[in-house]
Amino acid sequence: MHHHSHEIKMYGGIKLYAGTASPDLAQKIAEYLGEKLCERDIVLFPNDNLFVKLHTSVRGQDVYVIQTTSAPVQQNLMELLIMLQTLRLDSAARITAVVPYLCYGRSDKKDQPRVPITSRLVADMIEVAGADRYVTLDPHAGQVQGFFSIPGDVLTASHLIVDHVNQAIRPNLKDPVVVTVDLGFAKKGRNFASDIDAPIAFIEKRRVTNNAKAEALTIIGNVRHRDVILVDDEIDTGGSIVQAVKLAKESGARQVYVVFVHPVFSANAVERLAALPVTGYITTDTVPISPEKRALLGERLTVLSVAPLLGEVIRRAHEGRSVGEMFNE
Amino acid sequence: MHHHSHEIKMYGGIKLYAGTASPDLAQKIAEYLGEKLCERDIVLFPNDNLFVKLHTSVRGQDVYVIQTTSAPVQQNLMELLIMLQTLRLDSAARITAVVPYLCYGRSDKKDQPRVPITSRLVADMIEVAGADRYVTLDPHAGQVQGFFSIPGDVLTASHLIVDHVNQAIRPNLKDPVVVTVDLGFAKKGRNFASDIDAPIAFIEKRRVTNNAKAEALTIIGNVRHRDVILVDDEIDTGGSIVQAVKLAKESGARQVYVVFVHPVFSANAVERLAALPVTGYITTDTVPISPEKRALLGERLTVLSVAPLLGEVIRRAHEGRSVGEMFNE
Amino acid sequence: MHHHSHEIKMYGGIKLYAGTASPDLAQKIAEYLGEKLCERDIVLFPNDNLFVKLHTSVRGQDVYVIQTTSAPVQQNLMELLIMLQTLRLDSAARITAVVPYLCYGRSDKKDQPRVPITSRLVADMIEVAGADRYVTLDPHAGQVQGFFSIPGDVLTASHLIVDHVNQAIRPNLKDPVVVTVDLGFAKKGRNFASDIDAPIAFIEKRRVTNNAKAEALTIIGNVRHRDVILVDDEIDTGGSIVQAVKLAKESGARQVYVVFVHPVFSANAVERLAALPVTGYITTDTVPISPEKRALLGERLTVLSVAPLLGEVIRRAHEGRSVGEMFNE
Amino acid sequence: MHHHSHEIKMYGGIKLYAGTASPDLAQKIAEYLGEKLCERDIVLFPNDNLFVKLHTSVRGQDVYVIQTTSAPVQQNLMELLIMLQTLRLDSAARITAVVPYLCYGRSDKKDQPRVPITSRLVADMIEVAGADRYVTLDPHAGQVQGFFSIPGDVLTASHLIVDHVNQAIRPNLKDPVVVTVDLGFAKKGRNFASDIDAPIAFIEKRRVTNNAKAEALTIIGNVRHRDVILVDDEIDTGGSIVQAVKLAKESGARQVYVVFVHPVFSANAVERLAALPVTGYITTDTVPISPEKRALLGERLTVLSVAPLLGEVIRRAHEGRSVGEMFNE
Amino acid sequence: MHHHSHEIKMYGGIKLYAGTASPDLAQKIAEYLGEKLCERDIVLFPNDNLFVKLHTSVRGQDVYVIQTTSAPVQQNLMELLIMLQTLRLDSAARITAVVPYLCYGRSDKKDQPRVPITSRLVADMIEVAGADRYVTLDPHAGQVQGFFSIPGDVLTASHLIVDHVNQAIRPNLKDPVVVTVDLGFAKKGRNFASDIDAPIAFIEKRRVTNNAKAEALTIIGNVRHRDVILVDDEIDTGGSIVQAVKLAKESGARQVYVVFVHPVFSANAVERLAALPVTGYITTDTVPISPEKRALLGERLTVLSVAPLLGEVIRRAHEGRSVGEMFNE
Amino acid sequence: MHHHSHEIKMYGGIKLYAGTASPDLAQKIAEYLGEKLCERDIVLFPNDNLFVKLHTSVRGQDVYVIQTTSAPVQQNLMELLIMLQTLRLDSAARITAVVPYLCYGRSDKKDQPRVPITSRLVADMIEVAGADRYVTLDPHAGQVQGFFSIPGDVLTASHLIVDHVNQAIRPNLKDPVVVTVDLGFAKKGRNFASDIDAPIAFIEKRRVTNNAKAEALTIIGNVRHRDVILVDDEIDTGGSIVQAVKLAKESGARQVYVVFVHPVFSANAVERLAALPVTGYITTDTVPISPEKRALLGERLTVLSVAPLLGEVIRRAHEGRSVGEMFNE
Repeated sequence: MHHHSHEIKMYGGIKLYAGTASPDLAQKIAEYLGEKLCERDIVLFPNDNLFVKLHTSVRGQDVYVIQTTSAPVQQNLMELLIMLQTLRLDSAARITAVVPYLCYGRSDKKDQPRVPITSRLVADMIEVAGADRYVTLDPHAGQVQGFFSIPGDVLTASHLIVDHVNQAIRPNLKDPVVVTVDLGFAKKGRNFASDIDAPIAFIEKRRVTNNAKAEALTIIGNVRHRDVILVDDEIDTGGSIVQAVKLAKESGARQVYVVFVHPVFSANAVERLAALPVTGYITTDTVPISPEKRALLGERLTVLSVAPLLGEVIRRAHEGRSVGEMFNE
Repeated sequence: MHHHSHEIKMYGGIKLYAGTASPDLAQKIAEYLGEKLCERDIVLFPNDNLFVKLHTSVRGQDVYVIQTTSAPVQQNLMELLIMLQTLRLDSAARITAVVPYLCYGRSDKKDQPRVPITSRLVADMIEVAGADRYVTLDPHAGQVQGFFSIPGDVLTASHLIVDHVNQAIRPNLKDPVVVTVDLGFAKKGRNFASDIDAPIAFIEKRRVTNNAKAEALTIIGNVRHRDVILVDDEIDTGGSIVQAVKLAKESGARQVYVVFVHPVFSANAVERLAALPVTGYITTDTVPISPEKRALLGERLTVLSVAPLLGEVIRRAHEGRSVGEMFNE
Repeated sequence: MHHHSHEIKMYGGIKLYAGTASPDLAQKIAEYLGEKLCERDIVLFPNDNLFVKLHTSVRGQDVYVIQTTSAPVQQNLMELLIMLQTLRLDSAARITAVVPYLCYGRSDKKDQPRVPITSRLVADMIEVAGADRYVTLDPHAGQVQGFFSIPGDVLTASHLIVDHVNQAIRPNLKDPVVVTVDLGFAKKGRNFASDIDAPIAFIEKRRVTNNAKAEALTIIGNVRHRDVILVDDEIDTGGSIVQAVKLAKESGARQVYVVFVHPVFSANAVERLAALPVTGYITTDTVPISPEKRALLGERLTVLSVAPLLGEVIRRAHEGRSVGEMFNE
Repeated sequence: MHHHSHEIKMYGGIKLYAGTASPDLAQKIAEYLGEKLCERDIVLFPNDNLFVKLHTSVRGQDVYVIQTTSAPVQQNLMELLIMLQTLRLDSAARITAVVPYLCYGRSDKKDQPRVPITSRLVADMIEVAGADRYVTLDPHAGQVQGFFSIPGDVLTASHLIVDHVNQAIRPNLKDPVVVTVDLGFAKKGRNFASDIDAPIAFIEKRRVTNNAKAEALTIIGNVRHRDVILVDDEIDTGGSIVQAVKLAKESGARQVYVVFVHPVFSANAVERLAALPVTGYITTDTVPISPEKRALLGERLTVLSVAPLLGEVIRRAHEGRSVGEMFNE
Repeated sequence: MHHHSHEIKMYGGIKLYAGTASPDLAQKIAEYLGEKLCERDIVLFPNDNLFVKLHTSVRGQDVYVIQTTSAPVQQNLMELLIMLQTLRLDSAARITAVVPYLCYGRSDKKDQPRVPITSRLVADMIEVAGADRYVTLDPHAGQVQGFFSIPGDVLTASHLIVDHVNQAIRPNLKDPVVVTVDLGFAKKGRNFASDIDAPIAFIEKRRVTNNAKAEALTIIGNVRHRDVILVDDEIDTGGSIVQAVKLAKESGARQVYVVFVHPVFSANAVERLAALPVTGYITTDTVPISPEKRALLGERLTVLSVAPLLGEVIRRAHEGRSVGEMFNE
Repeated sequence: MHHHSHEIKMYGGIKLYAGTASPDLAQKIAEYLGEKLCERDIVLFPNDNLFVKLHTSVRGQDVYVIQTTSAPVQQNLMELLIMLQTLRLDSAARITAVVPYLCYGRSDKKDQPRVPITSRLVADMIEVAGADRYVTLDPHAGQVQGFFSIPGDVLTASHLIVDHVNQAIRPNLKDPVVVTVDLGFAKKGRNFASDIDAPIAFIEKRRVTNNAKAEALTIIGNVRHRDVILVDDEIDTGGSIVQAVKLAKESGARQVYVVFVHPVFSANAVERLAALPVTGYITTDTVPISPEKRALLGERLTVLSVAPLLGEVIRRAHEGRSVGEMFNE
């Protein structure tokens, strides 16, 4: 008795659907796979109700819904949920929510009493709407995997970023040092430093006594006369980065690079970044960046696309092949 | 062996929480009950993430969250869900979601293939977030009760409206006739007509052949030389009402009144209503109406408050007493 | 990369099972599909316990259980549930409950306090017994779709009926008008009227003041000198139809036809119908009609078979093809 | 810190509801508790649909629904389920299904392929309808407790029966021996024999070779010149008892008594029992016995009431006291 | 339209995994199937935490985890659960837990108050960890099937044992009689006796009055001058068997054989068995027996392998073919 | 209308149960509360099956099961689960699992493919067994709160430890610096450093190129001529601590203290610690330390009891009072 893995045909064909949150990324994933995005209507009615209609049946198909959940967060999330339910009610064989940036990742534990764990709530909502699986990239905490009851592929863009840094930037750096902006990122920062063969330092924030709001920042480790690569998982309003760059410079850093996966870019983040003495910003397209914002950062901004990564994972998930192999794991 | 119902003390005290969607209604409910709204922070961060923090513990308490889900729909709904989860994680004894206007009520069945039943999705989300019970008013279809697994009190403002119409308007009407704007409201329209002792007529919309978008309207029943009361469950963009008033007038109606429970008032609905030859608009406060909108309709607008109704239901739910008794049922 | 939809083979072969409630319909469905009904024992023991035994294994198969749930309601329902569980325990790959007439459809909301929503209970029972999907026809309220967590195909026999009426009856009618027996059917009545290009009128029932049980009937709209087509979703005891025919005749109607999907025919319904001045009764075979009952109505009764409709839906569900396409949707 | 158990008041008052299956037993339980049965309508409509309406609210109450599930099994079961859902939707604090005789107890495992485990299905149905707890008596297999996810009190009438036998019958017996009718009852039969201090014997049924339907019966153990007490959990059609009595007599037994908990009495069971040379039948009222049937067995029939047992368990469950204590356990 | 059952390919290939509890049996099953056991790491860390890592992906595969749950029970069970979860999180298409000996089978009901039903707990744990199906052999009570919500194949080794006894032992026996060690095994013992065409007798244990711990044993039925086959489902500490053999011998038995499915062999069971005047012990390899233990019993011990049975069931489950057919059922 | 919070009596009395894993801690908690531990049997049978029997009923009570889950992990965990199920089946009103040290905390995400998230599995098992709530202390990752669907109190012993360090050690330190042993503890280490008003440094482990197993350790930050406090959440085999102490000393540290919450002490951890040049070890009693182990560390070991903390949380949970208030939150 012998089984040829190429005979496996668990489900019908791949069907790719995109929400409205990240159309470019969805299009690139479709192109990677040689597929077309399936047509559907997504309407926002005057009463702020969302409506979805699929143009063709997904009965028995293997469906992937690509929708990032950056701002407008609630609308993008609800759009995802309604699409999932619509697909489920149309008897799809398997539904995978592909969420490049998964919202509410920082609300992942009760670090004070009487607050929510919204990240778990989001996982519950995705499940109750009808997802059989999920795919996401670089969540704030890897533990979000345990918030889901359904299986998923939690990927990282780190290989992508490390390859880029090692090829395009590392050769030009003198005595580089990786610096984490947040102590919660210390372990991942260490991994990154190890991957580009550089030492690491940390920025510590500590509340100033007698003043609930003031924070003192310290660099633990050595940055003087070194090229600094600041690393974090996302840039939100940019406040921490502004502080970190300033501190690094005051501490004698030479060039400063900033590396992060998710360009959330809330409020006037891009304006603030544009004003910083930073040589380069390296990020990905898990969150779409408007042309206006791109223009402000100009050539200093490098956006690596996660489309080939997500596309390949979708292909392998569909064909029942290992995703870990992609990373020699 | 004897049981005195006044001894019943199933849960701790009443705790009332309000989201940000309908603060005035929540305040009135609290006043009806002689309670204060519990303090909490609700923050919308620059990255469009919502955050909730309760100021005091609800451990073992009987909590009611008052939050309507009109526009911004997604934000109001998410705020409700996060509050529910926060209360659940803080070990509340029982949590009731009090949602005067429950969003997505019209997405209640698949009347065409490949569309969602978002109303069921909303019910699922409210349950998964942690509600033990729910209270709502005049849903589009009474069947929404069957979308929930948890018990709830599905109320109607009709007694309130009938009483007002019978006292303030009915005596001044000459040969009144109730007219439903939508055939889906025919049965409820009949009940209303019966309650104010008037005959009924119906507006029928029908697609014109050879033109997918054009609709022809007909009145079935007699409105000539009569005072017309147009009835529906909600006014959204006002388009149907504009057509209905026009048709009624063309058909020989004299005065026209418009009665509806939920003043959703999307887009430029209020401007359109303000321009109509309508004597009076009677509605409730399940959805808040801004002072600007109120000003446009002036004295023609009557807003009946559902606060005493919701307050009394909360009191009875807390004390383990019948709600049906309120309506002699 | 390319996917041919004809390659899809999600599940094993089709396996059709029939309960004892509607053997003729089941047989016709099987014939439409070119399949045989699978053999099984269904025994009612002297202690009123039902027992089921499948003659062959359904391991890995795509199984459809055809069972209507007209009277004896509880027995037919329990038979369905036991079959579903038996199939699940025998490791069927997918199980679809095909229920032409779904019982308890009118118990779909709490329209008074302290009553059940039995229609939701029935949905819960079908799910807990093991159905992965369901198929039904013309439920009393379309919202029953939201009572199920599992996906389903909720079909309508309206195309079937409209085609028959347009071909066999409409040409002979003079000034036809469609009349709904119940205001809850107003919207569907309008659709039917539109499909046969006729105007519509409504029968309104209203309680007479000072007499809880007496009801006054009125026709809203014009039936004088017209051929009337009374429409409803089902005929139960026939009481409403008797009243409606009488009222139509008194109001000057000429010929009267009666059109309805489900011939529930409780109590002495058929005897009452046989005595009415009705030219023709058009219905379907979602509920079996005994030869005795058929004889009473004679040639006035037309029973359209839903077997081709259900058969085609089963075929498409099995092959992973669109059901909506059948109706150009 | 000290807690007085009499302060405990978990739920509101006791509310007793009875279905239509065993009104006398329900009344006796109510009398034991000094409570009244709550009023409710239970209607069977002409279309065979059941309908329930509670006369008063059970919001926050501790409700017990007494309904046995003997024939008509499906109707009694559905009545129970609808009552449970109605109570749940009316926001009862806790709902206990009290089912003296739990149907489908013998369908408790797949002893051949492709058959149901209906007893588990019944447990699932009771849970999905809304029961928080259940109470039953002498199920066919004690393992049914593991079919429920909810807690329950699985009681036995054996103390009741043993006490009666020891007081009223045992003193008059000469060399008594207990004989089990079915080997599946061997262990319980041994317990009974031990409780009345008698030896035990067993009837073995075995299929005769070359004849699938013929069975040979043998008594293992000694009954000659002894008074025999045949024991089983229920009498259904009486077939086994007829065989057993005949075999006992042929084997030299003197007097024969028959002891069993559930008088299911299907088909012509009572007529068959009436014709047997049996001195006495001892059973309980878990299943109601019609006056006609009682008359046929006359004074030979002793029916012990389980009402005090069930009443006491309800009282203790309500007050949060041990049920095991009742049996010195 | 025609379906060829050999076309069915529900899932990917068979993947066999073995825990550490029964490596020999797992290896034999793999050999029967012509498959290799998949490689995985199972590590017990110094802190007594178990860790599992699969060497290759199981995405979309049809996975079988072979793990018996004899001592060390908790460790073997936890190993099984962790493997199930790991496979589920790796997106296996279907996961079947193959548990030759399922632990805690005797904790299957509350036969006294305030004790667990651990067998149901084990079923719940297996389900929550991620099994879609289960396979086990000769559980203590067949009702354990009803403890699972997932379908399963509950097999018996009885055909295997009966065939062996009929071929190797039965011809040499003189006036054989089957004797059950426990009354709970009476029915299965009867089946065995019938299969080897022998009469049956029973050992009854009864508590001696005035002494809670002392038990009196009696044989019901005739063993004098007969060859006795003692039967039970498992041998644990061997205490019951020691008593039973002694009693049989005292009652005049000639040769004694002992037949049982599961060689649990706790404490010094094997030493005690070795000392008994028993001609042969016949059992299976559902629980591994160490070479030391085998040596003690020497040639008197016959261990029949269940590997072909389990292997064939896995093959049929994978191919969607009937398991019942294996036994002409 | 007014509610007095002291009237609240949600559940029956407090009932404390202890497993066998941490009897001393359980006893101290009981003493803190002025309660007695409830009596129960916990038996480990020769076949390695655990058995539990409660001596008294918990019907309607508010039960707390105190059981730590250090080694033997699987046995302690299973004991907890069986107790939970037993309590649930005995109809306890509310059951809280109090698990001072929650096992498998480090298996909290898939940091490589094809591994489990055992921490989530453990949460699932605790829920399925019957816990309504849980209490634990200093889990490895706070996100474990999101693994549970039930609410819980996740506490920290940090206040306890900080108070002790500030009072007993801090005054004697010269230029203290806090050093984290693992970068995953960086944020919590910073909090501790802030609480005792000391700077922080980090030990970084990094794999040496070309050698998969070798790791290089570096201290980031300044320890020379300083008193070092090494901090971590637990000490398992002690390997990391041995390395850290050695590195600190080599880097010029003066005194070294080691502070950690959970004394897991696997393998020969204590022997290794005893040999280190460490002035003091500060830990808690979440995991019991045998007298032999205590003796090895002698006066250098300080074990702070978490009993008052857990006792107070139980008291407040029972009385429906805030736990956050205990920490001024």
